[in-house]
Amino acid sequence: MKISLLLTGNELMSGDTVDSNSAYVAQSLKDLNLVPIIKKVVGDDLTLLVDSIRELSAVSDVLVVNGGLGPTVDDLTSLALSKAADSPLVENQEAYAKLADWAERRGFVITESNLKQVNLPEICEIIDNPRGSAVGFRCVFNECLILCTPGVPSEFKPMVENHLLPLIREHGDIEAKSHITRLRLFGITESGLQDTVNEVFADWPAEVDLGFRVQMPVIEVKLTTVGDDLVKLNQVWADKFRAHFSDYVIGVDGTRLTQALNQALLENGLLITTAESCTGGLVASGITSEAGSSRVFEAGYVVYSNKMKERMLGVNEQTLIEHGAVSGEVVAELVSGAIKKSGADIGLAISGIAGPDGGTEDKPVGTVWMAWGTENAIKTRRFLFPVARLAFQKTASAIAMDLVRREVLGLSTEVDYFSELKKKRSTA
Amino acid sequence: MKISLLLTGNELMSGDTVDSNSAYVAQSLKDLNLVPIIKKVVGDDLTLLVDSIRELSAVSDVLVVNGGLGPTVDDLTSLALSKAADSPLVENQEAYAKLADWAERRGFVITESNLKQVNLPEICEIIDNPRGSAVGFRCVFNECLILCTPGVPSEFKPMVENHLLPLIREHGDIEAKSHITRLRLFGITESGLQDTVNEVFADWPAEVDLGFRVQMPVIEVKLTTVGDDLVKLNQVWADKFRAHFSDYVIGVDGTRLTQALNQALLENGLLITTAESCTGGLVASGITSEAGSSRVFEAGYVVYSNKMKERMLGVNEQTLIEHGAVSGEVVAELVSGAIKKSGADIGLAISGIAGPDGGTEDKPVGTVWMAWGTENAIKTRRFLFPVARLAFQKTASAIAMDLVRREVLGLSTEVDYFSELKKKRSTA
Repeated sequence: MKISLLLTGNELMSGDTVDSNSAYVAQSLKDLNLVPIIKKVVGDDLTLLVDSIRELSAVSDVLVVNGGLGPTVDDLTSLALSKAADSPLVENQEAYAKLADWAERRGFVITESNLKQVNLPEICEIIDNPRGSAVGFRCVFNECLILCTPGVPSEFKPMVENHLLPLIREHGDIEAKSHITRLRLFGITESGLQDTVNEVFADWPAEVDLGFRVQMPVIEVKLTTVGDDLVKLNQVWADKFRAHFSDYVIGVDGTRLTQALNQALLENGLLITTAESCTGGLVASGITSEAGSSRVFEAGYVVYSNKMKERMLGVNEQTLIEHGAVSGEVVAELVSGAIKKSGADIGLAISGIAGPDGGTEDKPVGTVWMAWGTENAIKTRRFLFPVARLAFQKTASAIAMDLVRREVLGLSTEVDYFSELKKKRSTA
Repeated sequence: MKISLLLTGNELMSGDTVDSNSAYVAQSLKDLNLVPIIKKVVGDDLTLLVDSIRELSAVSDVLVVNGGLGPTVDDLTSLALSKAADSPLVENQEAYAKLADWAERRGFVITESNLKQVNLPEICEIIDNPRGSAVGFRCVFNECLILCTPGVPSEFKPMVENHLLPLIREHGDIEAKSHITRLRLFGITESGLQDTVNEVFADWPAEVDLGFRVQMPVIEVKLTTVGDDLVKLNQVWADKFRAHFSDYVIGVDGTRLTQALNQALLENGLLITTAESCTGGLVASGITSEAGSSRVFEAGYVVYSNKMKERMLGVNEQTLIEHGAVSGEVVAELVSGAIKKSGADIGLAISGIAGPDGGTEDKPVGTVWMAWGTENAIKTRRFLFPVARLAFQKTASAIAMDLVRREVLGLSTEVDYFSELKKKRSTA
């Protein structure tokens, strides 16, 4: 079965946007054991779009068109498909109903521009898009299944899983089904994983395809086998893999780090509180990004200044003077204060130098102290993440959450995060 | 001048590698006021490569081929060009000399595989590649300048600046340089903007290209003109656009909403504090994501449970019982409490139902109350964002930040966010 991709958008041609949709759909197509044969990207140019739809549909069984569904005049996909397939644009009633519902639920009134989005080639049926005003649509033309999809990644990605894969599977003779095990790891790099696998699993079988995909801050590891007779082998090697990387594995199938943390807390009946300086609320917002977080979280403190560390959480002025805000002593007092004030069972505190300014020789930009634990058992650690401000904040938050996850689950918190990389450097 | 890109590599099709070369070359081509018209990506497939070279060279003045220059059997570019242009492969003496030099300097011995890299179509001349063993090469075929380049980004990128741009400039009649004005807006949708532009600026000149790009939560508006004599016109229409959408404009050239908020606070010498329930620290982490935020922010409170709203910020138990946590009364008390506790000048509080559970008939999922202001001048507003949890949290945070930005700058906070759609209601 031959699959092609056609992406449209001036922003893709100008280089202002790096396309991540096509890599995403290609990764997802691996579930069907398919690799796209051609990807074509054109600007918002009607002639090029019409020609490309004709050309690619002639050599493919499935054509995924991405982008150009928006309400503005430079969104040309439905018009181009209408011309390519010689099928007039008509107001699609189902699309209109979806749009009306979408607008109603948001208190919006449908505009001229929106109406353009429901004028679809007569031969098309819609593909539902719960995330946006533009529905997707599909038809068979040139014996090719054409799937027109929104360019916005947050709308496109769920559509791939929920609609595209089932439609493609239905359209074609999908060869022997692939079996996929997905593990989610935190705290180790892609190259660290690959090197360790090469070293430890010299006998890794060729039939079990091992793939990595970084989904910050987590790495997804995919073991793929093709055919029912290899399902067992897949499981055997998934188990071996899991056993070797045990503590790094936070879950399976799309588990988020925040989800793993909340789950660990919930299973152990623990309430957590946070005292954040350099991460400014990123951990608290991570925990509360998960539905049901009220069962594990009630209170968080963002103590950005020294004065607030004292006033809000009772950090000793003397400790701040002697050791500075970025110190094990201060984060320990922050955790202790947050637990006392909130009545939570377990606490987490982070204080560091996010930069770009504020570093010293002793404590360069990227230095961060973390403390975590219960009132009578507080641990602290120092890290150095000499990266840009946002990356620093995200890395620090993620590692802090993982430390608590490990603590709660009784796993080692002495772990050398992303250490496989360091090991490699020292031997290189 | 028409320029196309052809990228080759199985890793690009499988989604294992995200292509950054094409965005890089597109950005570089802006210097010549060129935007590629077509980008095509194919796997390591000889037939597809030959066809693509023929097809793209027929419609372009310049074709940049990227990848497939390596020493392995799946590197097919020179063979494909040889077939497409009907020019036999011969050992290129200049390429051989470069390879010999490259090998000598590294103490390598030239292998069979390396020799494959110097067999180039007879019509080709080489393009120097100081970073790798594979030279680039070029020819004119179909009246199209074909430039074959290495896929490794560290080899490709210097080749763009040092060789590709000069060769392209030499090959074609390069038009005048483009002038771009970039404005950043918040609180209005792409379709709202487009509709308003159509209505208000019926006389918008064709020479000033108007483009929109959503960079959540902000929209970037780009006015592009070509040639020095149109710079003035660009500015005139940028000023008109800016004047019309005044309050929505948060800045120019990449300004973030958090940056605009912090800037407004800093200019007015104000310290802000946050009391967040449903957004769980997202506003605080947004403010502190910006360098220098310590000058405008010292303390934030994440008061997720009712108990903590009372304990941390002194919300009256009776208010909670009478009005519920999601109410104007409670957010007003939260702001007041946060200002008192922290000593900040201005406060912001958010309490809502992020879902998926917790909605009632009166207060469905997506309901959110915000309060902001100084201790003696607190305003409140209710919104409804019936979207998924994460989108709800992000939307609520962004609008809350914008309300404070407007308040501080003395702009209206009665704004109907994303309203251009609603405005239509009254005229429709």
